Amino acid sequence: MRPTVTDALFLGLLKSILGEDGLRYSDAQKVVYASDAYTLEKSLPGIVALPRTTREVSELLRACHEHKVPVVPRGAGTGLAGGSTAGGDAILLCLSRMNQILSVDLPNRRLRAQAGAININLTKAVASEGYQFAPDPSSQGASTIGGNIANNAGGPHTLKYGVTVNHILSLQVVLPDGEVMELSTEDSGYDLVGLVTGSEGTLAVVTEATVKLVKTPDSVRTLLVVCDTIDDATAMISAIIAAGILPAALEMIDKTILQAVEAAYKLGLPTDAEAVLLIEVDGVEAGIDRQAGKISAICQALGALRIEAAKDAADRARLWTARKKSVGTLGRLTPSHCTQDGVVPRTKLPQILREIAAIGIKYRLRIANVFHAGDGNLHPVVLFDERDPEEVKRVIAAGGEILRACVNAGGALTGEHGIGIEKRDFLDLVFSPDDLDAMAKVRGAFNPDGLLNPGKLLPFGGTCCPQLHQPETEAMLRLTKTRAAAV
Amino acid sequence: MRPTVTDALFLGLLKSILGEDGLRYSDAQKVVYASDAYTLEKSLPGIVALPRTTREVSELLRACHEHKVPVVPRGAGTGLAGGSTAGGDAILLCLSRMNQILSVDLPNRRLRAQAGAININLTKAVASEGYQFAPDPSSQGASTIGGNIANNAGGPHTLKYGVTVNHILSLQVVLPDGEVMELSTEDSGYDLVGLVTGSEGTLAVVTEATVKLVKTPDSVRTLLVVCDTIDDATAMISAIIAAGILPAALEMIDKTILQAVEAAYKLGLPTDAEAVLLIEVDGVEAGIDRQAGKISAICQALGALRIEAAKDAADRARLWTARKKSVGTLGRLTPSHCTQDGVVPRTKLPQILREIAAIGIKYRLRIANVFHAGDGNLHPVVLFDERDPEEVKRVIAAGGEILRACVNAGGALTGEHGIGIEKRDFLDLVFSPDDLDAMAKVRGAFNPDGLLNPGKLLPFGGTCCPQLHQPETEAMLRLTKTRAAAV
Repeated sequence: MRPTVTDALFLGLLKSILGEDGLRYSDAQKVVYASDAYTLEKSLPGIVALPRTTREVSELLRACHEHKVPVVPRGAGTGLAGGSTAGGDAILLCLSRMNQILSVDLPNRRLRAQAGAININLTKAVASEGYQFAPDPSSQGASTIGGNIANNAGGPHTLKYGVTVNHILSLQVVLPDGEVMELSTEDSGYDLVGLVTGSEGTLAVVTEATVKLVKTPDSVRTLLVVCDTIDDATAMISAIIAAGILPAALEMIDKTILQAVEAAYKLGLPTDAEAVLLIEVDGVEAGIDRQAGKISAICQALGALRIEAAKDAADRARLWTARKKSVGTLGRLTPSHCTQDGVVPRTKLPQILREIAAIGIKYRLRIANVFHAGDGNLHPVVLFDERDPEEVKRVIAAGGEILRACVNAGGALTGEHGIGIEKRDFLDLVFSPDDLDAMAKVRGAFNPDGLLNPGKLLPFGGTCCPQLHQPETEAMLRLTKTRAAAV
Repeated sequence: MRPTVTDALFLGLLKSILGEDGLRYSDAQKVVYASDAYTLEKSLPGIVALPRTTREVSELLRACHEHKVPVVPRGAGTGLAGGSTAGGDAILLCLSRMNQILSVDLPNRRLRAQAGAININLTKAVASEGYQFAPDPSSQGASTIGGNIANNAGGPHTLKYGVTVNHILSLQVVLPDGEVMELSTEDSGYDLVGLVTGSEGTLAVVTEATVKLVKTPDSVRTLLVVCDTIDDATAMISAIIAAGILPAALEMIDKTILQAVEAAYKLGLPTDAEAVLLIEVDGVEAGIDRQAGKISAICQALGALRIEAAKDAADRARLWTARKKSVGTLGRLTPSHCTQDGVVPRTKLPQILREIAAIGIKYRLRIANVFHAGDGNLHPVVLFDERDPEEVKRVIAAGGEILRACVNAGGALTGEHGIGIEKRDFLDLVFSPDDLDAMAKVRGAFNPDGLLNPGKLLPFGGTCCPQLHQPETEAMLRLTKTRAAAV
């Protein structure tokens, strides 16, 4: 019989591993861990564990494996899909105290860090030497490299530099039974680094990572293009890419976001334009002005109201504040918001933005848009008040319709935020039962008891979080049964 | 009981799927399929199957699954590790007739091809529009995209553009039981595209691929740097990278290769230099001469004897002929050669090249070197005569010592050629039994009966190729037993 997580004997074992200081039991302490940045569903974890070493993680997982206690890994809790929300029967394994940069090897352009190291601190450790860690999710001031790996995070500069997995050389991971392994992209055999990256903590817990460093570009030009209509903005995006230019970043920010950011930060942003594009090119100094000029000419020809170029580094930082702080400032408009993460082929951007606007009208919800336009990676932000249960229902329904619209446009459910618990019900839009079964087999190879982040990424394979919503669609239920029968 | 592959009933089933024209039975027909480009071990397959459609592949795999007949997938047979060598009890599934480019979508920069399409034909299909498929293995005039995917092939331009997996958007695969699946990097869930890429045909058979297209660079500058010593050449490599320059390609070619290529092609290459570096930078026209100039200055300062710049496209093609045809011309020196594929950190290049030279002396073998220097991806080519069994033994022993030296220098067994059968005995240099067990579990999730490319990539999990060498090291034997007991 499975002991409950708070059994005295089991608690004693946890204390012997982590010390009193490494555990949180009281509701007052646990309430801050009740959800990540997906706040539509909350649940107090059984216990919060805060290890300081890989050894502690290993011993903790071994104990949970032996006693059949579910474990939910967590970084900084900036995830947007509920991937690190834990049920009351589970231990929330929080890696935030394992935050050290362990080594820097500039000749081989690599850096080793603990999983809880904050993304921006990787770049800070090498910036003075002219290097950076390229993946830059908007949460980079808070999110951890381990969380970035779990979700294979992107960011504005993904367009040119790729997502997290493109920058990982090796991972130290702890398997659900406590075994510590080093996985390397430079080794032969199956690409287990690639498999673990983006697996949302359902295969193994990442404890350390060796990442690639890239040279800070010699020169950068940052443009803010003010657009009269959303359609104008999407036409410019298509034309820039069609011209064979690969900007380092190509972001769109709509009027709702601009107004909120401007009210909060007074950056001198245009508040009357329907949208702006934030476009960056980087590379060697020679030729960069010509490239920026080419972009300006395209935008001008397609009806740009105004084009502003960052005058210096401080001015560039000002323009990027508009993007990176955008979602945070929406708290000025409504108490809650929910950021979607659909992807569509770039050519479908005008169509999908019109459909999202129509969904907003249908459900009487305000929807702001700020997103990685160059990648076709949308982030519609639905504004609401979570204290109004009727409105919450409309938010969930609208979110579902947006995801369906993305898939119908030839796109996908998530660009960089993961499936978590938020999108489990929608997996059958893109995957057949056979597809999901193949994934379940992969999970079973690593996590046969389903104790590691149960019920995340796939709708079956664990009984954690009974207080969270259970999968609803027919295909999901069928699969849940199939898997249950197979176990 | 397992029927033999040539049972009349089973043969009748195969004919009903592939037609008479899709099968090869006679030894005279099969002899050309007795090995890939790793010629140290040969074996006639039971039957060669040449499907034309995914449906035929699916029906063939379903039949083999039902009758427990092993299947070994093959592209053009340019592999260098014996990954597509099949035993007499197996069907060699050759995808070379599935060679069509299916569609081109320039606005979304993607192309769909059948797995047997030849690498260079992908670029040829879009070159006039200013696009290319970036991965360019030296075999690109013959090797198939399916084979490139199975081995996650690199090439000279991997340094800047990445390996095959970085350019794959989705794969159509057939599982060992005949089920057809579409895997996409744009979908959520586990990265099964990444898992299948580089899995050497042990998880699924790739039948179609959608690949990324990249813009052909505006401008290219190609330099040939003539070096007095190998040490000079490796010092230049380190200095170029340390200066923060990322060339599109950075290759080293040694004197043995230069002389062979020059004798064959009369390209006007230096035949007295110990080594040359072939260095390419690409990008926008403005600034590119300055970048090439910076590289020249570094090489000059470090003792370059002479630096030659390609004058035009024809001249660039001449210099690349020296690289891409290099291994092929070695037939002028000895009847046989075997290309190794170790990887070391770039900073260890001078040390490892000295060790390889010492290994050549120890085993009385001539070893030529031509390799992706910027990546630290070595290709020592051991020259020998395969009709001399005593010399073959020395070749195998020297190959093992080279791989051990690479691993001891902090490197890996293979950069881009795969494990195949060649390197199975060396897996325990980099992997613990637990590591290998994790990989075996992954294979078991896709290929539970071990019928798909048995005995490749991992030393256990199938009884195919009894005429080929069996794993020898203790760890391998232990694992073989463990796995056998578990099945």
